Amino acid sequence: MLRKPPILDWGRRYNRTTLVDDGIAAIIVTVMLIPQSLAYAMLAGLPPEMGLYASMLPLVAYAIFGTSTTLSVGPVAVVSLMTASAVAQIAEPGTAGYVEAAILLALMSGAMLLLFGVLRMGFLASFLSHPVIAGFITASAVIIAISQAGHILGVSASGDNLLQLVANLAGAVAEVNLPTLAVGTATLLFLVGMRKGLEPLLVRIGMPGYWAGMLARTGPVFAVVGSSVAAHSLDLGGRGVALVGDVTAGLPDFTLPVLVHPAWRELLLSALLISIIGFVESVSIGHTLAARRHQRVDPDQELIGLGASNLAAAFSGGYPVTGGFARSIVNFDAGAATPAAGIFTAAGIALTALFFTPYLAYLPNATLAATIIVAVMSLADFSILKRTWDYGLSDFIAVAITIVVTLALGVETGVACGVLVSLALHLYKTSRPHIAVVGEVPGTEHYRSIDRHEVITRSDILSVRIDESLYFANASFVESRLYALLDERPDVRHVILMCTAVNEIDLSALEALESINRQLAERRITLHLSELKGPVMDILRHTQFLEALTGKVFMSQHGAVRHVSAIENAGHGKEPHNWEI
Amino acid sequence: MLRKPPILDWGRRYNRTTLVDDGIAAIIVTVMLIPQSLAYAMLAGLPPEMGLYASMLPLVAYAIFGTSTTLSVGPVAVVSLMTASAVAQIAEPGTAGYVEAAILLALMSGAMLLLFGVLRMGFLASFLSHPVIAGFITASAVIIAISQAGHILGVSASGDNLLQLVANLAGAVAEVNLPTLAVGTATLLFLVGMRKGLEPLLVRIGMPGYWAGMLARTGPVFAVVGSSVAAHSLDLGGRGVALVGDVTAGLPDFTLPVLVHPAWRELLLSALLISIIGFVESVSIGHTLAARRHQRVDPDQELIGLGASNLAAAFSGGYPVTGGFARSIVNFDAGAATPAAGIFTAAGIALTALFFTPYLAYLPNATLAATIIVAVMSLADFSILKRTWDYGLSDFIAVAITIVVTLALGVETGVACGVLVSLALHLYKTSRPHIAVVGEVPGTEHYRSIDRHEVITRSDILSVRIDESLYFANASFVESRLYALLDERPDVRHVILMCTAVNEIDLSALEALESINRQLAERRITLHLSELKGPVMDILRHTQFLEALTGKVFMSQHGAVRHVSAIENAGHGKEPHNWEI
Repeated sequence: MLRKPPILDWGRRYNRTTLVDDGIAAIIVTVMLIPQSLAYAMLAGLPPEMGLYASMLPLVAYAIFGTSTTLSVGPVAVVSLMTASAVAQIAEPGTAGYVEAAILLALMSGAMLLLFGVLRMGFLASFLSHPVIAGFITASAVIIAISQAGHILGVSASGDNLLQLVANLAGAVAEVNLPTLAVGTATLLFLVGMRKGLEPLLVRIGMPGYWAGMLARTGPVFAVVGSSVAAHSLDLGGRGVALVGDVTAGLPDFTLPVLVHPAWRELLLSALLISIIGFVESVSIGHTLAARRHQRVDPDQELIGLGASNLAAAFSGGYPVTGGFARSIVNFDAGAATPAAGIFTAAGIALTALFFTPYLAYLPNATLAATIIVAVMSLADFSILKRTWDYGLSDFIAVAITIVVTLALGVETGVACGVLVSLALHLYKTSRPHIAVVGEVPGTEHYRSIDRHEVITRSDILSVRIDESLYFANASFVESRLYALLDERPDVRHVILMCTAVNEIDLSALEALESINRQLAERRITLHLSELKGPVMDILRHTQFLEALTGKVFMSQHGAVRHVSAIENAGHGKEPHNWEI
Repeated sequence: MLRKPPILDWGRRYNRTTLVDDGIAAIIVTVMLIPQSLAYAMLAGLPPEMGLYASMLPLVAYAIFGTSTTLSVGPVAVVSLMTASAVAQIAEPGTAGYVEAAILLALMSGAMLLLFGVLRMGFLASFLSHPVIAGFITASAVIIAISQAGHILGVSASGDNLLQLVANLAGAVAEVNLPTLAVGTATLLFLVGMRKGLEPLLVRIGMPGYWAGMLARTGPVFAVVGSSVAAHSLDLGGRGVALVGDVTAGLPDFTLPVLVHPAWRELLLSALLISIIGFVESVSIGHTLAARRHQRVDPDQELIGLGASNLAAAFSGGYPVTGGFARSIVNFDAGAATPAAGIFTAAGIALTALFFTPYLAYLPNATLAATIIVAVMSLADFSILKRTWDYGLSDFIAVAITIVVTLALGVETGVACGVLVSLALHLYKTSRPHIAVVGEVPGTEHYRSIDRHEVITRSDILSVRIDESLYFANASFVESRLYALLDERPDVRHVILMCTAVNEIDLSALEALESINRQLAERRITLHLSELKGPVMDILRHTQFLEALTGKVFMSQHGAVRHVSAIENAGHGKEPHNWEI
């Protein structure tokens, strides 16, 4: 049931206009991608050329199999951080084993994404709530920014959570390298200035908004060129400023990842988390951009596209990739018309790898660190705490726990906790559902809560609306709440359960209903149901419950109350068992 | 906020009638408990006297703090198996370390139960669905019965899952001890005969049903006496029949469990599972018996009662205990009036431990194994598979996985899988809710599914009922389903979401609604909501959503359709934004 690769669709309609659009977008994205690829490889603790490799074949694979016309795939900040955090557990940074493990991670993540795609399991991503994602990205951005502070200060300070990082930075503060600090601070100020000040300035002096925006985004390119020239001419390398150094030139070899790597079991959970986070990040960007052009992305096909990208990364010496926010926006704004823009971008990066790597040798790491810090600054959004606080307690708890645990214990524990806590809170809420006693809104057939509306009730009829599906986690809660309501109302002869919100009755809940029916019968109270939904009624019809039910099943609450009232008024209240269902 | 111990209630009302009732019940239960305590200690791999110790102080503690008048606490089959399975992971059976770990387990379980009780966390037990419990008990019964087969055959065959047990039994079958097999088989036949044949026989020859039932339950006592006498007179010990041997006489010392035992971390999960399973088993027995006498048990206080029992077990050389099914039924049937019956039973067991242990030396282990097998046979109930199969797929999957995993991988993995699978299935279902297009049932104010009822609809109004709370796991599913419905209906100008089943809207779902509202506005379609519940409306009022909403919020679906129809009919359909909310 696989669909054919989307390239067969858009490839057929390809023409000269789209070629020009895609070509222009590709040039702009390539220029932006070069410093970004190097920077994220550094963030992941990998050699700079791996960042370039991860920006070639994966883009081609996505162009063939992906469904977004503008998504730009490659190394991204959060996935690079997660890669570093996963791989550091099994190998020392700087070793061949570390590189091997990163490639293996791309392979495993690609295989998982592909498998999820074939099994159409895109829905799995929906178990990450928006607040949990926002909290996770925010906390990751903080960790990333602080992890780069060492490069700005010219000291080495590693760690994959806030406490470790801050402790290591504090310990190393005496060894600060002042020339490095100067380069880093200058780049930071320049980049922030470009981003915040240049665009409004250019617009004010008459440049069209489109070009002003594009130019403002080229900050990293100028920073790279400027600081490389400075490093070369001022011999910053000799003054203790760490430089990128030799970048292996040329295209990646086709590498066969070590398939039976001894560490694959230890990387399993990391690969799963990287796959899910990468997928969620990528799909949400894809949705956002597609909506602006009235297009759609297909989550299940996206899994296949991203899976193919990661496999391509693994077979060409790259590391885990996904759709990136900043570069996709640039690709979109630059007018990319089809995924072919990605293929052209890959060609641009390939040209860079072939011919321009010698020029990267003098690039200071502090410059790359500054570009990372400025890039992730826009990802951190602590306002999610305020927004969830205003909205509701359980969203707030989920986001707060995600942020705190991610900062304190690292990215993997953080996101796992976020998902588990939000699911647990949801289950907790459904295990103690809202139960309303309802009455007739005068002059209508409508029944609403007695606590919120002026309604008509009778002392011999208790109408109860259960605001949740009935299942094992709330069956006994509902049962005891019902008895508690009856204890306060000794005159009740009929209980009518209004089931508008009951979307499911599982076997545990059915047993609870049977027990309620028996207990009420002993107290000479008749149990009725109303407004059961079709699918629920279908299931109950297959059981003995409807025969055992002392009362009736009514289509509407209004009908139920009218019928029962008529019987009570006629004095037949004592023989409820004779009724037919 | 702790309630006072229930003993202060019933103790005040204690009189001579209740004393006599409790005394008679205690004598009957004591006689039944002696072989059971020894047998379950053997099942747990512990010395026989630990079974007796676990049947003294824990009963007194429960009598003080428990809320059931008839529940009988002590060693039970499933918890004994779980104890053996947990402790065997860290110590060799027969060593002092093994005994120490079992006591530690009682201490940890007692502390956990007490903590859950103080925090009023009895609701945790409701996450074990009835089918999962039934499947777990059934599979445990099978494992217990087969684990005892070695004692009947006179070979040693250990293991904590079906595969290990059967493999070990098959390997040891050549070493079968025939005298042991004779004792075991004879006891089995005798016990089954007593249980199945004696009661109807006695009733037929004129004995009152009550006494016939009581007598039929004394089978194990006769089996113990008969086989001990046979072992003594025929020197079965010399013929290779394993006997209980020396049972330490006297009351247990007050023991301080090794609090800082190095293994406590490894036992943490086991202690938690034992606590929850023990609690669920005990509370469901308590509920069943209480309902027959129109009494109630309070789950949170039961946690405290069982917690105190397990702490008492730990401090008096016992092992984890809980309310037992068979003995509670006997206690109930024998007419126990108050928890004092438990105190008297404890006294009976204490007398046994002081004066009767020498008579237990000749008791064959095969006899105890036979009593265990017969006892657990009644626990195994494979009909749960058929019942869930008939009822619904997800209940069936949960019970099938619980049974298979318990048999294949052991009790702890089995019950953990059962809980996780049933929760995952529930979440999966709520992540893909039923969504019905509804129309007016002619002549009523009622709206039902167009697929199931003859209803009135309009081509310019789409009424959609979402049969689930809106939360992160289904927000994007609902959004894309809605667009799919609109793709099929190009004439729609108004969408009315009927929210009768929407009990919650979390932040992720609110963002989805905002996105729906925007997307529909672009298509010049107005979005309305109807039948929002009070608690949901309270939350939405605090947001900007109601202001951004292109349509209105209506109290009833009928009102919504009438209002929108009137506007469309009057030709105002193009200016939906002017409406007030």
